[in-house]
Amino acid sequence: MIKVSVLGATGYGGIELVRLLTSHPNVDIYKLVSHSYAGKSLADVYPNFTAYKDISLSSLDIEEIANGSDIVFTSLPHGTSSEIIPLLYEKGVRIIDLSGDFRYISPEVFEKWYGYKHPHPQLLGESVYGLPELYKEDIKKARLVGNPGCYPTGAILTLAPLIANKLIDLTSIIIDAKSGATGAGRATSVDLNFCEVDENIKAYKVATHRHTSEIEQEISLLAGKDITLSFTPHLLPIKRGILSTIYATLLNTLSFDDIYALYKEFYKGASFVSIYTEGKFPEVKYVNGSNQCHIGFAIDKRTNRIILVSAIDNLVKGAGGQAIQNMNIMFGLDETTGLPQLGWYL
Amino acid sequence: MIKVSVLGATGYGGIELVRLLTSHPNVDIYKLVSHSYAGKSLADVYPNFTAYKDISLSSLDIEEIANGSDIVFTSLPHGTSSEIIPLLYEKGVRIIDLSGDFRYISPEVFEKWYGYKHPHPQLLGESVYGLPELYKEDIKKARLVGNPGCYPTGAILTLAPLIANKLIDLTSIIIDAKSGATGAGRATSVDLNFCEVDENIKAYKVATHRHTSEIEQEISLLAGKDITLSFTPHLLPIKRGILSTIYATLLNTLSFDDIYALYKEFYKGASFVSIYTEGKFPEVKYVNGSNQCHIGFAIDKRTNRIILVSAIDNLVKGAGGQAIQNMNIMFGLDETTGLPQLGWYL
Amino acid sequence: MIKVSVLGATGYGGIELVRLLTSHPNVDIYKLVSHSYAGKSLADVYPNFTAYKDISLSSLDIEEIANGSDIVFTSLPHGTSSEIIPLLYEKGVRIIDLSGDFRYISPEVFEKWYGYKHPHPQLLGESVYGLPELYKEDIKKARLVGNPGCYPTGAILTLAPLIANKLIDLTSIIIDAKSGATGAGRATSVDLNFCEVDENIKAYKVATHRHTSEIEQEISLLAGKDITLSFTPHLLPIKRGILSTIYATLLNTLSFDDIYALYKEFYKGASFVSIYTEGKFPEVKYVNGSNQCHIGFAIDKRTNRIILVSAIDNLVKGAGGQAIQNMNIMFGLDETTGLPQLGWYL
Amino acid sequence: MIKVSVLGATGYGGIELVRLLTSHPNVDIYKLVSHSYAGKSLADVYPNFTAYKDISLSSLDIEEIANGSDIVFTSLPHGTSSEIIPLLYEKGVRIIDLSGDFRYISPEVFEKWYGYKHPHPQLLGESVYGLPELYKEDIKKARLVGNPGCYPTGAILTLAPLIANKLIDLTSIIIDAKSGATGAGRATSVDLNFCEVDENIKAYKVATHRHTSEIEQEISLLAGKDITLSFTPHLLPIKRGILSTIYATLLNTLSFDDIYALYKEFYKGASFVSIYTEGKFPEVKYVNGSNQCHIGFAIDKRTNRIILVSAIDNLVKGAGGQAIQNMNIMFGLDETTGLPQLGWYL
Repeated sequence: MIKVSVLGATGYGGIELVRLLTSHPNVDIYKLVSHSYAGKSLADVYPNFTAYKDISLSSLDIEEIANGSDIVFTSLPHGTSSEIIPLLYEKGVRIIDLSGDFRYISPEVFEKWYGYKHPHPQLLGESVYGLPELYKEDIKKARLVGNPGCYPTGAILTLAPLIANKLIDLTSIIIDAKSGATGAGRATSVDLNFCEVDENIKAYKVATHRHTSEIEQEISLLAGKDITLSFTPHLLPIKRGILSTIYATLLNTLSFDDIYALYKEFYKGASFVSIYTEGKFPEVKYVNGSNQCHIGFAIDKRTNRIILVSAIDNLVKGAGGQAIQNMNIMFGLDETTGLPQLGWYL
Repeated sequence: MIKVSVLGATGYGGIELVRLLTSHPNVDIYKLVSHSYAGKSLADVYPNFTAYKDISLSSLDIEEIANGSDIVFTSLPHGTSSEIIPLLYEKGVRIIDLSGDFRYISPEVFEKWYGYKHPHPQLLGESVYGLPELYKEDIKKARLVGNPGCYPTGAILTLAPLIANKLIDLTSIIIDAKSGATGAGRATSVDLNFCEVDENIKAYKVATHRHTSEIEQEISLLAGKDITLSFTPHLLPIKRGILSTIYATLLNTLSFDDIYALYKEFYKGASFVSIYTEGKFPEVKYVNGSNQCHIGFAIDKRTNRIILVSAIDNLVKGAGGQAIQNMNIMFGLDETTGLPQLGWYL
Repeated sequence: MIKVSVLGATGYGGIELVRLLTSHPNVDIYKLVSHSYAGKSLADVYPNFTAYKDISLSSLDIEEIANGSDIVFTSLPHGTSSEIIPLLYEKGVRIIDLSGDFRYISPEVFEKWYGYKHPHPQLLGESVYGLPELYKEDIKKARLVGNPGCYPTGAILTLAPLIANKLIDLTSIIIDAKSGATGAGRATSVDLNFCEVDENIKAYKVATHRHTSEIEQEISLLAGKDITLSFTPHLLPIKRGILSTIYATLLNTLSFDDIYALYKEFYKGASFVSIYTEGKFPEVKYVNGSNQCHIGFAIDKRTNRIILVSAIDNLVKGAGGQAIQNMNIMFGLDETTGLPQLGWYL
Repeated sequence: MIKVSVLGATGYGGIELVRLLTSHPNVDIYKLVSHSYAGKSLADVYPNFTAYKDISLSSLDIEEIANGSDIVFTSLPHGTSSEIIPLLYEKGVRIIDLSGDFRYISPEVFEKWYGYKHPHPQLLGESVYGLPELYKEDIKKARLVGNPGCYPTGAILTLAPLIANKLIDLTSIIIDAKSGATGAGRATSVDLNFCEVDENIKAYKVATHRHTSEIEQEISLLAGKDITLSFTPHLLPIKRGILSTIYATLLNTLSFDDIYALYKEFYKGASFVSIYTEGKFPEVKYVNGSNQCHIGFAIDKRTNRIILVSAIDNLVKGAGGQAIQNMNIMFGLDETTGLPQLGWYL
């Protein structure tokens, strides 16, 4: 059994990770650390855990966590992660970080988009970007994984086969993404009040969202050259799910079947990516609760564009599920172990 | 492995049952019968099954179903169930019916509330009311189970300890219940359109809902005398969940702790019932996706009433989950096998 | 033109009052006071006012407000209202208070339910309970009106004809009420986050909500004797609206038509109360945005109970709309002036 | 007073038009025609009209409608409109059609996107495209107005100043639009069930939606050359509102202020268009219930793109409100008469 601890267990990302971990056949939960609720029972904070009421929440003791855990998931705000992770890292425990702190190759890019110098740039060289569909071999050997952002997971998986096969004009990429409100975390902000989010949709951080840089990093690596793209996130009145509608101009005249075949080939070993046949498009309710990324697309001959639509559950494939997929790989398990392929439509 | 077929697999009740069955360790799905979608792949109708795309939907062949299945779940409209079940029953296959057709002891009560004569009243004597917390021993031996209605499941479990312990005035019971829209099934009716249900709540079938009679039957059996009560269902703008707020007048002055102890005693062997401590009340998000029934209550000394609040997931404990619980009991498995204790808060 | 100021203009109650005031033909808005946003434009805080962008928000200057206003609406937290209102009152300006501070006759009852001594009990004798359907004559002469709570408005209007006509057992009243989230105001609390309220319903303050005492005060006055009743509020995943389902035992055998006639008679001069014919029940979407209270009911012969369902918009008839109705009466206008009879179904 | 009739009064578009008409100071409603509910009271179908219960619904009598009405609004399915309108037109009554039947200049374009020959192509030459911000002078004289589609209204208003000022690469336009479910009308389709729409978002008719051609027609006229663009509609779990996120490549380096000034100039006489200052973007809740179109934008120097976000209420500016604006212009009234500038944020 893998001994697992979670730091930041009671945020929305943390609690979903914990929920998924409880049904993993190879996991023993060691410590659930919660700054806000240390000492309480998990069921007091999230009463859906009532039937598991013996799990208690701890305060952070680096020594204890590092000694008692085979792996630590950090579901903390960026900035906090980069303070705590070096302390864990030097004690030799493996770490999967769900913040943005260890996803970047370049400290300069991090600084530009996060607004401050990365405090431990040397660790950026140690960390692996935890997108298993691209980096499985690196993840196997990783001691520190930067688990991808929710938006980047959907966008990169959707774009990767196009880029790798050099099918599109690299200056033409536009990602219009729509996310459920769990993406904003369990914060107390007027903007996240039910009455502000319900019956509404808004774009936010237009042309300035940090995930732009994360997507650009990975797409540029695939392309072998620097790519600049447009990414616009929107907040939806739903809890879970990200739908990404992506536009790009095709370099050549290609049929649906041509591109479908390339996608199937690109993802042939990927258990968590499904490609839709012609005329079908994913919806977020198709992936709620699952670790799947569903991808559909159309070719618009009138404009010579490809329009792709992908759906993930931001809390699963976009966060905790992907983190567990990474853990599975790091510990030599089948990557699907303990992860839901089938979510709830209703 | 238990060979299982589902009739009516593509309604909301049916598909949730199928979803739960796919993760049951002792179940092999034999046939999924769908009148509307026979011949199609399940993933075409419910694309959340895309990663399981080899499940195909069948048309109904009684002979084949009866021969190839150890148990058949019927998730059909009332009236249709009572036509088909006798044909299956005489072939010896075990059956769990999710309609209202085999929940009643008295054909007269059925006729009064359903508006037509029961076509097979003799089978009512064979069928067992599938509420495991009350009838586990009968269910073990049953060949035909009438799986309880969603509202009755919540109401009966919440009231049973009060009745059994003779704590309340039997003329004082009022059940004000609120349900998610999956309870209405996958029907096409203007009333169920998104724009009609969203941002709304309504009471419906005030003083006339059929589940009244089902609750009264069971509560009367527990009391040993005929009980008449008030039950008002409401439609909520949510998918899943029933919250029941129940009022009754106490016969004696009892403390919270007294009644709490009686509830804990009454449900001491029940894996799927949780009793809340003083000052806490269940919410539907605490049981979404789980087979749990959560019960909380307060004693109002000013009015000498007890006010109880219970929550279930209407699609799980109120339908398919409870049906699987019954199947587990009928096949000698632990009643919790393959059933979720922990749902999703988010 | 009536010169009007609003204190607490940027809470949910305040802003709806302001929205309604902007379309009132006899009103000039003098000052909109907002503690949080003084100095800003209203359109900066609520961009639906963009086409009215010259309204600016002020800080509180009692002298200025009292001198420049014919009437002041206070939409402030209880406790704050009772500090500020005496200062305005002594300057002679008329006041309609939307908090709970001036709704009570008895300072003892206030203290019992609000948990502290009323700081100006003598003013309770001056204030009139602003439910126009019961107190129109008193409101005409009032200098200080305690505008009713949202839940009490629905409950009292629904019960009043039964009480006045002595039709029900006064110990049997149960009010099960369901409210949209605007009722909780524009607070920042984890409990009011979108992800906590969406796809959920909960009961709260079971047997302890302050509005119980307000309803009891008014119902007792109508009955001429002290009444104790049960009131349970629930939080719905909708913005607006209260549905109250009310149960009471009838003293005599009465037909629907008998009671319907009594309701029509009781409300014959009331422009904002509609009584439903047999078999029809109000829904909150029927009154969204209007100042109407819709009431329907059924008589359940089996239990000898009457079950009533009423709907109001908590922000209109339950708050700002009713406040304007009171203002109209105080200033000799037709009570319907400037108030919406027709809301939005969609 | 203008005598007005509405054909198709009980669809979602129709009923919102009727709701708006009831508060128009210069309108007398003559006949409300409803195929489904002729003979019923409007309040029976939409009980929010209970306080107006004397409005009854009629069946269609062309002669009577034409003789008794100064103007007829047709809120009918396309295909039905083009059958009925010629009959009304030849009797001389003025008509505003809310379907797609009379929005096109070219019968070939209509046929290509609607899939059948236009039955009265000669009337296309008579009809005026009812977007008052572009065609006010033509509308003044029109006898037949093709009221714009909901998506085209938002898209065209947002793009027009860019096109008219030749600021963007005309091959680069991408419109990613998100709509509330009222846009689909009051149809009975499983896809529109609450449980299918709630907690979901989907793209639909990707690269094939008819409104593409309507937008292209108008944008091409403004540009003076044929434009082909990408338009992707999405269905949101909200009732009302369209948010359009629009991308285009700038031809020159322009500052926010430069473009802001051009927008203000372009819309200087437009009462229903608001341009946002830098860093602010519209949300659908800012325009719910109002006839406003709110437009915000950012310039992304990294990609040399302009990203625009606009919001309208699809039922008001996108349908009935705009139709009334057209009527006002046709009858020489101020275009804002009887139309809401201020909607409801809550």
